[in-house]
Amino acid sequence: MPLKVLFLNCTLKRSPQVSNTRALIDKAVSLYGELDIESEIVRVVDHNVMFGVSSNEGPDDEWPVILEKIKTCDILIIASPIWFGVRSAVAQLVIERLDGTYEESNPETGQFPLYGKVGGVLVTGNEDGAHNVAAHTLFNLTHLGCTIPPNVDSYWVGPAGPGPSYLEAGGERHLYTNKTVRYMVHNTAFFAKLLKENPIPINLNQLIEEAKKESD
Amino acid sequence: MPLKVLFLNCTLKRSPQVSNTRALIDKAVSLYGELDIESEIVRVVDHNVMFGVSSNEGPDDEWPVILEKIKTCDILIIASPIWFGVRSAVAQLVIERLDGTYEESNPETGQFPLYGKVGGVLVTGNEDGAHNVAAHTLFNLTHLGCTIPPNVDSYWVGPAGPGPSYLEAGGERHLYTNKTVRYMVHNTAFFAKLLKENPIPINLNQLIEEAKKESD
Amino acid sequence: MPLKVLFLNCTLKRSPQVSNTRALIDKAVSLYGELDIESEIVRVVDHNVMFGVSSNEGPDDEWPVILEKIKTCDILIIASPIWFGVRSAVAQLVIERLDGTYEESNPETGQFPLYGKVGGVLVTGNEDGAHNVAAHTLFNLTHLGCTIPPNVDSYWVGPAGPGPSYLEAGGERHLYTNKTVRYMVHNTAFFAKLLKENPIPINLNQLIEEAKKESD
Amino acid sequence: MPLKVLFLNCTLKRSPQVSNTRALIDKAVSLYGELDIESEIVRVVDHNVMFGVSSNEGPDDEWPVILEKIKTCDILIIASPIWFGVRSAVAQLVIERLDGTYEESNPETGQFPLYGKVGGVLVTGNEDGAHNVAAHTLFNLTHLGCTIPPNVDSYWVGPAGPGPSYLEAGGERHLYTNKTVRYMVHNTAFFAKLLKENPIPINLNQLIEEAKKESD
Repeated sequence: MPLKVLFLNCTLKRSPQVSNTRALIDKAVSLYGELDIESEIVRVVDHNVMFGVSSNEGPDDEWPVILEKIKTCDILIIASPIWFGVRSAVAQLVIERLDGTYEESNPETGQFPLYGKVGGVLVTGNEDGAHNVAAHTLFNLTHLGCTIPPNVDSYWVGPAGPGPSYLEAGGERHLYTNKTVRYMVHNTAFFAKLLKENPIPINLNQLIEEAKKESD
Repeated sequence: MPLKVLFLNCTLKRSPQVSNTRALIDKAVSLYGELDIESEIVRVVDHNVMFGVSSNEGPDDEWPVILEKIKTCDILIIASPIWFGVRSAVAQLVIERLDGTYEESNPETGQFPLYGKVGGVLVTGNEDGAHNVAAHTLFNLTHLGCTIPPNVDSYWVGPAGPGPSYLEAGGERHLYTNKTVRYMVHNTAFFAKLLKENPIPINLNQLIEEAKKESD
Repeated sequence: MPLKVLFLNCTLKRSPQVSNTRALIDKAVSLYGELDIESEIVRVVDHNVMFGVSSNEGPDDEWPVILEKIKTCDILIIASPIWFGVRSAVAQLVIERLDGTYEESNPETGQFPLYGKVGGVLVTGNEDGAHNVAAHTLFNLTHLGCTIPPNVDSYWVGPAGPGPSYLEAGGERHLYTNKTVRYMVHNTAFFAKLLKENPIPINLNQLIEEAKKESD
Repeated sequence: MPLKVLFLNCTLKRSPQVSNTRALIDKAVSLYGELDIESEIVRVVDHNVMFGVSSNEGPDDEWPVILEKIKTCDILIIASPIWFGVRSAVAQLVIERLDGTYEESNPETGQFPLYGKVGGVLVTGNEDGAHNVAAHTLFNLTHLGCTIPPNVDSYWVGPAGPGPSYLEAGGERHLYTNKTVRYMVHNTAFFAKLLKENPIPINLNQLIEEAKKESD
């Protein structure tokens, strides 16, 4: 069965508005295609995803459909614009909703649903903030169970201050971004295959029991 | 050959002062021992590590000795206290010095010296800031070539505001910390073995050449 | 005319659910009352505030009503829970929407609508992340025109790891939080009065013209 | 008596190496000069400032001399390069050393030595991270007692990825930076004068006593 990558595009703009973040995603999709990895893109803001920290916030909540896609992918890429130096409200919403997965751990191993998946990030912004977006997002993904290979963040930003965005600025020809998006694709692909063949054996439940022995 | 873990204790306090961060490191050392993984601890502030971003800042610089240990370990754990909500100046110094490793990449694959190593973090503080320390430190390690497995940060902090430190507060009996230090040890151990048997094949040089074709 | 403080409660929970962040706001309201400062609280999630970076995102958008309140207050307090170590998606949404105010600067002075206002933050969370929430939020407010007096963040968090929230944990009796909420109230009150009597005279338009002379 | 501004240049490079951060400081110095404000620049790394969190770490420690300058300035500007997305180890060292000032509060009012001073930041880096440096540094300064006026951060960074620094890249002609350095100078100058004429009256000791009444 081929590997599957899921991109969550956390732009603030609904379809059919042009998303710069989407343009960078498209590069990655094409590169994954060369490796026979199937891509799916969800533009989160096009769906009625409610604020909250559970996996289902009621009948109108469209998060459960997205969550199902997350659970069946091998590689999860959070793609976010930068606003005010940090990730978008939509990206934060996505991370918050993933809090619900902690409640759905494997009864035997205690592993959360995202264990065994590989994470990465794509970031676009007019300017400054990409390190912050990537650092917090990748870290949050490790808490949720994802593995983070080396060099799996790719970003484009312009110089200091407001200015043109990725597409307007010709960011598609920026070497650093074109290089790092390749690093991301190849490293996530290698790790996804490796972890499929070598599932993480950790038993969190057992480790909790051991920890209790030296705790209050 | 047994796996080797290196802890860089980034406390601000020179020996023989009591280091709370060291107390948490000692827990991890003992757990790694149960897995037949050999530990080494370097208290960075006891050495004359100079400010800079190269791998050698002159004849008095003791960084090269530490860097050699980093290059030969399988698992690298940055252990830092929290000061003003972020990692210590010593931890930042360590990360800055690792900038020099970008210059020492493998001529064929372009991989940096930390490729194939597995990273983790330990954090102690009276209060608030552990997520920030862990997020930026783990992210920086991925840039340098490390792999970050799930749940490889373990921390202890007390409630809001100044207060007793890890040892004084009886943090050694805090369940969350005792649980997560086990997650860290077991997950880093699994990944270190896995990557030793399955080296990351990525050729960064080749990907740069490909990227150049669609760049200015 | 008495001074006015506006609290934007950025909890994820809609009314009438119990909001821990609201409980801390209530303390501040009472303290402002002792200084004859009038409080208003908006629970943002109870309103249909759309994603975006303009001041009006269409006919269903309820942001304009909130923005009007922001423009007429003297003190603006962003109150946010912590989720995954950072501010809530609702708090991020609020900051993003304030981006629109950059477009509404005073034609003569170039000052943005939030110039002359005083900012502060309140943060509650089970654990870790308050410094990060406060740092980014206060910084964003300075970009938008607010002044940040000393000690205008007050927060409550419990020790490392998941645990009881502010109300359940008896956070209302935590000295550090009770102390800092007073610092916040008194310092914001002093500065609001001071700036009302001494408006910031800066002419941003003129400074831009001067800057252009030494720029490309 | 004329106002005094103190710049702490937190570059990693000792004199007489060229410091990009210094080049941006020089712009601000010249602008302050136009307002008859006297500037002093300390390149911290040229002095033997020891790691620690007290105001005096022993006979070889040169921090006390710098601290004295801090105590007598009206405006304090932390100027830092960006390394790995955050402030330099030297900037972090400076902030950590300021922890000692909490112990030197005014016996009557409880105000810390930095109360009444006005803070700002200057940041230079090849790329990305300026928001993070500014946010944490300005926030830390508010904790220490400084007031943060609107728009008192000025920074220069290039586009995504490694690249030329401020001077090499002709950053001195970058409009955004030239504009914001003026905002910083004029706003800090206004507030320094305002606070000199209107000292912050808050009595922290008294507020602590009140807080104790509703605390454990």
